[in-house]
Amino acid sequence: MITHNSSNKRDLLSIMDLSRTDVDEIMELSFDLKSDWSDRRRTPVLDGCTMAMIFEKASLRTRSTFEIGMRQLGGNTIDLSNLNIGMGTRESVADIARNLDRWCDLIMIRTFSKERAETVAREAHAPTINALTDEEHPCQALADYMALMVKEGTRNLSGFPIAYVGDGNNVCHSLMCLAALLGMDFRAACPDAYMPSREYIQWAESQARGTGARITVTSDPDEAVRGARAVYTDIWASMGKEHEHSERVKVFQPYQLNAQLLTAAALGAYVMHDLPARRGEEITSDVMDGPTSIVLDQAEHRLHSQKGVIVWLANIAGIRPYL
Amino acid sequence: MITHNSSNKRDLLSIMDLSRTDVDEIMELSFDLKSDWSDRRRTPVLDGCTMAMIFEKASLRTRSTFEIGMRQLGGNTIDLSNLNIGMGTRESVADIARNLDRWCDLIMIRTFSKERAETVAREAHAPTINALTDEEHPCQALADYMALMVKEGTRNLSGFPIAYVGDGNNVCHSLMCLAALLGMDFRAACPDAYMPSREYIQWAESQARGTGARITVTSDPDEAVRGARAVYTDIWASMGKEHEHSERVKVFQPYQLNAQLLTAAALGAYVMHDLPARRGEEITSDVMDGPTSIVLDQAEHRLHSQKGVIVWLANIAGIRPYL
Amino acid sequence: MITHNSSNKRDLLSIMDLSRTDVDEIMELSFDLKSDWSDRRRTPVLDGCTMAMIFEKASLRTRSTFEIGMRQLGGNTIDLSNLNIGMGTRESVADIARNLDRWCDLIMIRTFSKERAETVAREAHAPTINALTDEEHPCQALADYMALMVKEGTRNLSGFPIAYVGDGNNVCHSLMCLAALLGMDFRAACPDAYMPSREYIQWAESQARGTGARITVTSDPDEAVRGARAVYTDIWASMGKEHEHSERVKVFQPYQLNAQLLTAAALGAYVMHDLPARRGEEITSDVMDGPTSIVLDQAEHRLHSQKGVIVWLANIAGIRPYL
Repeated sequence: MITHNSSNKRDLLSIMDLSRTDVDEIMELSFDLKSDWSDRRRTPVLDGCTMAMIFEKASLRTRSTFEIGMRQLGGNTIDLSNLNIGMGTRESVADIARNLDRWCDLIMIRTFSKERAETVAREAHAPTINALTDEEHPCQALADYMALMVKEGTRNLSGFPIAYVGDGNNVCHSLMCLAALLGMDFRAACPDAYMPSREYIQWAESQARGTGARITVTSDPDEAVRGARAVYTDIWASMGKEHEHSERVKVFQPYQLNAQLLTAAALGAYVMHDLPARRGEEITSDVMDGPTSIVLDQAEHRLHSQKGVIVWLANIAGIRPYL
Repeated sequence: MITHNSSNKRDLLSIMDLSRTDVDEIMELSFDLKSDWSDRRRTPVLDGCTMAMIFEKASLRTRSTFEIGMRQLGGNTIDLSNLNIGMGTRESVADIARNLDRWCDLIMIRTFSKERAETVAREAHAPTINALTDEEHPCQALADYMALMVKEGTRNLSGFPIAYVGDGNNVCHSLMCLAALLGMDFRAACPDAYMPSREYIQWAESQARGTGARITVTSDPDEAVRGARAVYTDIWASMGKEHEHSERVKVFQPYQLNAQLLTAAALGAYVMHDLPARRGEEITSDVMDGPTSIVLDQAEHRLHSQKGVIVWLANIAGIRPYL
Repeated sequence: MITHNSSNKRDLLSIMDLSRTDVDEIMELSFDLKSDWSDRRRTPVLDGCTMAMIFEKASLRTRSTFEIGMRQLGGNTIDLSNLNIGMGTRESVADIARNLDRWCDLIMIRTFSKERAETVAREAHAPTINALTDEEHPCQALADYMALMVKEGTRNLSGFPIAYVGDGNNVCHSLMCLAALLGMDFRAACPDAYMPSREYIQWAESQARGTGARITVTSDPDEAVRGARAVYTDIWASMGKEHEHSERVKVFQPYQLNAQLLTAAALGAYVMHDLPARRGEEITSDVMDGPTSIVLDQAEHRLHSQKGVIVWLANIAGIRPYL
């Protein structure tokens, strides 16, 4: 087992694991690491360290940014797709976690079930990062708001009005909770049958009381978008829900992010999407490729904010580079 | 987005993108890098850089040599098989290219359709390398002629007679066009229904007028091989054509590279193949494993010439190492 | 081809390839490398070197430990799953080996057939490591006994009584042969139809005469376990045998490693398993997770002992780092 100086191991399974101070610390690290990257300065703070990456779902952005990010920090990744390791069939989740813990400093997991990510985090001494479950996508939300901060030229998003339209899914949950921590004016518009989970709404509302955030959940896209300075949508049938596609397309049609809906937003409102997009479904091409779209900035900042998360977790756990 | 000092981005999609001077520059770099490699000297000119590798087809040599090559240059690769990224289904080719462009310095793509490679090159600022399409295999041709230069002890292949027998495919196209640039005496013998594309023949002939190359395309293998100092063949049903295998075997039988056909060539003519080979089909084992076979030298020089291509493209684009 | 100073290439295909001196040398290196690792000291003795990893079977521990191990030695791996390279279908085993030999310093192979591993070793100049065949698992046995040495606080396992219960498979073969070299008191209890192969028993017995080892093969689990200070089992239907699962479960039931069987062993006997385990089949959860279980130590020592094997083979072959 790899032992470190500190026993204060933390994980990033949910935005609900974080305090406002935690978020500020992660952002601080993320901005510093981005600055080094922009200047093409090496940042080998995790020289020789290893992060295991467990994938139960397809991935472009997550795989690329975690792999590149670890290398830019001096470390490496091992790519464990479920095809190879048979998680839950060939070997139990807990046993896999305990094994990886012997060789790896960090573990990243993209899985369907929250329980699997929680099992890994519980069984391993290695800090564990949720890189997408059915319930949450915390790394995406951190990247999204970091991209917004860069665009706005301020790390203070207090009162910033952002509307999420479409499926009240994992991405929506994480965005809403992080908005609550950051004191933003977050509005979600989702069909009645696809509202965000009560648990996340309640947590966000409870945080909002302390941070001055506003959390609005409605089924009316125009109400949510009115005056918003950013409008965000996500694919209607995300990974694991593809079989519901034809049914969902009908229900979600009024929530399409198109030029018409955008007219309700503030002038020059940012267009956001975590990708991949189904152009012509949840978002029209003219809007996605329009002058205020920041979808590629969001993707880019996956790299920067995840490096921030990694270093933050590594520091707490006392993970030192190989010298 | 990764921005570099230069805006003179070039790609290697086709040999037809290259001038004779370009080829000389790539060869110069390739020979220098091979020399460092032979002495086991590190060449970290792309320290910390990343190349994305997109694979829509199986690969041994391409995957190995690009991956090892980038590492020997101090960089890294990310391996994006289509299984994971769902190019064209989960996400459009253009969107994938624009995303990769945010984190990667170079992009390599092995795909069926030329259009996909062209889309990547058009959408990305990152120099893009064609690592096999249905129409071309430029990196293979560069490696093949570099291996010949090494064997011949000269970088001047002017007038060198080489025969290609078999399928007028992607490999044939790239070999023919590069032979034209290098002033070689290139002969292709292909069944009437499997001739190289008119477009490539015309380009090669147009170049030949300036370089003194001879370009001969015939259906008679003996004519092509007569006096040749190298005889090259390729698999009859290459990737994507496997379903035509039984039909092709009949048509291509007279084009088999065997001891009998070799008697028409110059004494000691090199035997060449880009591999994988179907021993007993397009080439017999005695010839492929014979004393003048350089098939493994060709494979080895994939590493050296691709490192040359990478550094050449990186220099043009102003890609700097991380310091 | 990568040429090295020495022509004394060795491979690790079988424990039967090794002498007692070889094992001592490998252990010495493994312990030294583990000590560096524990202190997080870099050991870049193979800087810039490459090991090809060929996988025909699923893998968690083997993939992770070889990949992490090579990186901790300063080198890299390329991961060639059979999906990509089509060994034996797209290209012959021998041709693949000859190709890899041009770019790689070492080759690791996990395959069903011993013959494939032997072909690779014969065709390549690169030292070749058997990372599991149907007949042997030498890297596992080295890791297992290294873990035992650490637990016992001595590198001398002479006379140490260890019982293996269950399938007389590849793992059993390698454990038995290495026990013979180390002078241990090795007992295997297997159902009559699943005895270890005669060839391995005979080799172990022949070695035992020189080393003082005791080799006992029986069908009675209680006899084997009596007084043993370590009891080892393995999955009943290992990779490639899954279709025999229901039949095997019946035959192997009396060989289950459970609390009842353990009562026959010495007090505090170590519980061992090479994982993955089918909890409730060949081993019960209470025993596998019990206080004397060292299954995770075994897994961890895969990393250390394989680094020892790699460096040992590299030294013999004269493989030098890139400088």
